[in-house]
Amino acid sequence: MGVKRGVIPGRYQPFHKGHLHLIKWALERLDEVIIVIGSAQESHTLQNPLTAGERVLSIKRALECEGIDLSKVYLIPVPDILMNRAWVSHVETYVPKFHVAISRNPLVKVLFREAGYEVLEPPAFERNSYVATNIRALIAKGDKRWKELVPKCVAEVLEEINLEERMRELLRRD
Amino acid sequence: MGVKRGVIPGRYQPFHKGHLHLIKWALERLDEVIIVIGSAQESHTLQNPLTAGERVLSIKRALECEGIDLSKVYLIPVPDILMNRAWVSHVETYVPKFHVAISRNPLVKVLFREAGYEVLEPPAFERNSYVATNIRALIAKGDKRWKELVPKCVAEVLEEINLEERMRELLRRD
Amino acid sequence: MGVKRGVIPGRYQPFHKGHLHLIKWALERLDEVIIVIGSAQESHTLQNPLTAGERVLSIKRALECEGIDLSKVYLIPVPDILMNRAWVSHVETYVPKFHVAISRNPLVKVLFREAGYEVLEPPAFERNSYVATNIRALIAKGDKRWKELVPKCVAEVLEEINLEERMRELLRRD
Amino acid sequence: MGVKRGVIPGRYQPFHKGHLHLIKWALERLDEVIIVIGSAQESHTLQNPLTAGERVLSIKRALECEGIDLSKVYLIPVPDILMNRAWVSHVETYVPKFHVAISRNPLVKVLFREAGYEVLEPPAFERNSYVATNIRALIAKGDKRWKELVPKCVAEVLEEINLEERMRELLRRD
Amino acid sequence: MGVKRGVIPGRYQPFHKGHLHLIKWALERLDEVIIVIGSAQESHTLQNPLTAGERVLSIKRALECEGIDLSKVYLIPVPDILMNRAWVSHVETYVPKFHVAISRNPLVKVLFREAGYEVLEPPAFERNSYVATNIRALIAKGDKRWKELVPKCVAEVLEEINLEERMRELLRRD
Amino acid sequence: MGVKRGVIPGRYQPFHKGHLHLIKWALERLDEVIIVIGSAQESHTLQNPLTAGERVLSIKRALECEGIDLSKVYLIPVPDILMNRAWVSHVETYVPKFHVAISRNPLVKVLFREAGYEVLEPPAFERNSYVATNIRALIAKGDKRWKELVPKCVAEVLEEINLEERMRELLRRD
Repeated sequence: MGVKRGVIPGRYQPFHKGHLHLIKWALERLDEVIIVIGSAQESHTLQNPLTAGERVLSIKRALECEGIDLSKVYLIPVPDILMNRAWVSHVETYVPKFHVAISRNPLVKVLFREAGYEVLEPPAFERNSYVATNIRALIAKGDKRWKELVPKCVAEVLEEINLEERMRELLRRD
Repeated sequence: MGVKRGVIPGRYQPFHKGHLHLIKWALERLDEVIIVIGSAQESHTLQNPLTAGERVLSIKRALECEGIDLSKVYLIPVPDILMNRAWVSHVETYVPKFHVAISRNPLVKVLFREAGYEVLEPPAFERNSYVATNIRALIAKGDKRWKELVPKCVAEVLEEINLEERMRELLRRD
Repeated sequence: MGVKRGVIPGRYQPFHKGHLHLIKWALERLDEVIIVIGSAQESHTLQNPLTAGERVLSIKRALECEGIDLSKVYLIPVPDILMNRAWVSHVETYVPKFHVAISRNPLVKVLFREAGYEVLEPPAFERNSYVATNIRALIAKGDKRWKELVPKCVAEVLEEINLEERMRELLRRD
Repeated sequence: MGVKRGVIPGRYQPFHKGHLHLIKWALERLDEVIIVIGSAQESHTLQNPLTAGERVLSIKRALECEGIDLSKVYLIPVPDILMNRAWVSHVETYVPKFHVAISRNPLVKVLFREAGYEVLEPPAFERNSYVATNIRALIAKGDKRWKELVPKCVAEVLEEINLEERMRELLRRD
Repeated sequence: MGVKRGVIPGRYQPFHKGHLHLIKWALERLDEVIIVIGSAQESHTLQNPLTAGERVLSIKRALECEGIDLSKVYLIPVPDILMNRAWVSHVETYVPKFHVAISRNPLVKVLFREAGYEVLEPPAFERNSYVATNIRALIAKGDKRWKELVPKCVAEVLEEINLEERMRELLRRD
Repeated sequence: MGVKRGVIPGRYQPFHKGHLHLIKWALERLDEVIIVIGSAQESHTLQNPLTAGERVLSIKRALECEGIDLSKVYLIPVPDILMNRAWVSHVETYVPKFHVAISRNPLVKVLFREAGYEVLEPPAFERNSYVATNIRALIAKGDKRWKELVPKCVAEVLEEINLEERMRELLRRD
């Protein structure tokens, strides 16, 4: 089969404009892209506020709003396993056959390389702006500048979900 | 938010024409449909021959070939948990918010109803023909009639994967 | 500490009159009794229809109705682990220190003995009547004779829960 | 059924006078109270020194000593699951049906509210005194003032268990 | 590194003369052999009576008695994971790097081949005699002929453990 | 059976000269020694860089190079369970029957003592030099002095594996 596919693992807490750049960059180089939504079981913490389903929804909206061809993208939540050495195989179980992995994360790169995959390292898209940790901090504080850092349609989903309130609650002291 | 969504849980081992009827039937009644690929962790047994990723691929192909609008369908693998009472909540973690569940499976119906969901019971689409157990038996035997029971594009994917050989091997005696 | 305690492991699906005899028999021989509600994670199957919480509720009611001193009884749900050799230690984690185990189940007896516990084997209280498998079959069929086989207050709880309907639904063919 | 029940989740490492106030406060407002002993699988660390069974024992003793009606209280150990979104459902599996949740913990409040429960927020009972972290620190140091911070009968159980020695050992450097 | 290693997965319940033939056959073809003791978490059932540790002990004794060079053999218990597709990777985590897999089991062969390994299929060593299922049945019945079917030093270990009594107990009716 | 065995639990990340002293010290006091390679599921982190299989390989090489009689040593990887109270039983499942535990680790000592085992506390062999944390730091920095701190044959295995590069990669910033 001639289709060339790549996986892009991430936690997407939340999906921001850097991620969108990354998807577009990958789609220029590959036929199909598999977005692996990692730590799928996590949610409702300051580090991982969104459920896997909420992340699926917001990423799908972003792709549609940007006019990205949905037939070329897979969106697949994958829960953690507690065994790094078997993690690539775990991902292989959940997703269609793929040929390259796309990541800047050191552990992810080591694991895919040791499993025999080619790893593409994308450029850092305005890395200083698009940092999920900072975006989560802004959301928790109710600082509306977070909306400029995520795709417009993601912002809409996160407002429907009322993520600001969830994070504000979680931040509260006992 | 006005979008009305429904979940359709199944193992899709493999995705057959009865499943396709079901998706179409659901899309006539709902805005969006979430196909929950259950027992995602299972594969390489006679009962569950395909990986979750292979099931994702074959279902996506079927939807495309049938001209179904991909923006209205979510394809989400969900691993088993060993606690029926918490299973609906487990599904809720992995998928976008939904309003109805679509199933003929007794356990699935009981669990969604006890969790407060409306359950739509679809008609049995030529139930005698489209039975996954029988289709798997045909594949394992190499009886090519299985190809008439699954959507054409699913048949192509299962041939690329060479499912016949995998099942024939698994059937072999030690 | 001088208190002598014993564990009585069971699935209690449901708690029947034979179980009640057993508890009373044990309370005549020990200061305190720990009812271990095993396979706590299971529910909503024909084999294990009740949740752990429903079993806790029905057993507690039975003890109250029978005038058993609640200060002498512990009711503790314990989920399965998939490692028989470590199961006794797993139980020890969940329950107060105990000195004997009370059971007629071969596996349970072997495991507690190998772990160094004294095992008391109770008589079989009208064993032919009080068989959980049969009682479940009667409930699933709606045969009201099941009510004579469980303590009156358990029957009331199971009717509040509407266990008959749950089991009838689970029994239905897809 | 007219009985109104509430759950009170906590780790109870150890059960202190603030917890006792809380139980009494809840029993004034509800018919029955379910004490959920969370992180049941944890023990033998400085953060979680007691097993679930030791916590069950010490709480039961405290209730008896205080003359609290045991028929109105359920004491149920619940192990962690690693999926916040499904945690309420997990608790629902282990405990009888309940109607309100009682907690000051931000995560617990968010999760029960999102699951549709009413959440009662109790007052902070001399919060500065009754802090489990501080009590554990005192025990580990062998500073006997910890005995004034827990109910008298809990102190007796913790001395029988010799928790001071266990914590002193755990504190030791390799 | 020039050392050529092969894995030999099995449950070894118990290790019999057919297994011993297999190890010798493998050592004639490879530099080092890794005996993977599968389903390591299982024990105390009629199907899996021995713990992993008891299997380690009896296999080690058999190798010593047979004068097999221990420096060429690894004995490694591996627990099950519930994901066939990732099982080879799971094994790779637990054992030193290897180059071939040795098995007659259909599933094992499929999984190692799909993971890119060469699979050596050994001859069936007097397959009708050396069948673990039959040997377990003889042990459970106390039929001493089982001792002729396992290496002499394994028989000694199984007698020290008193496996006959354990199995007889497990066979008993409740 | 007269053989006296002891377990020596550790993570062996990596196996260093202090560990080798410890094994020799234990073999002077016991007939057989079981090296329990803990946290077997962990690898590819700065804290736990090696897989269980890589640790098995390097320890086996060290024993051979030192002329230690392999028939007196068991090398058994054991994954973590998340329940301290049942951990000793978990170890007992994986290893042959043993009589003493050898450790300086406070948690390990408490758990074995509470389970009724004699605990031997070995001397600290040049503890300031042989500290796994420091050795890992040297490896990650490519500071060759690490080779003096591990047995020569372990150094060879870690170079074959190219652990320096793996750790350097993991250390890199995203």
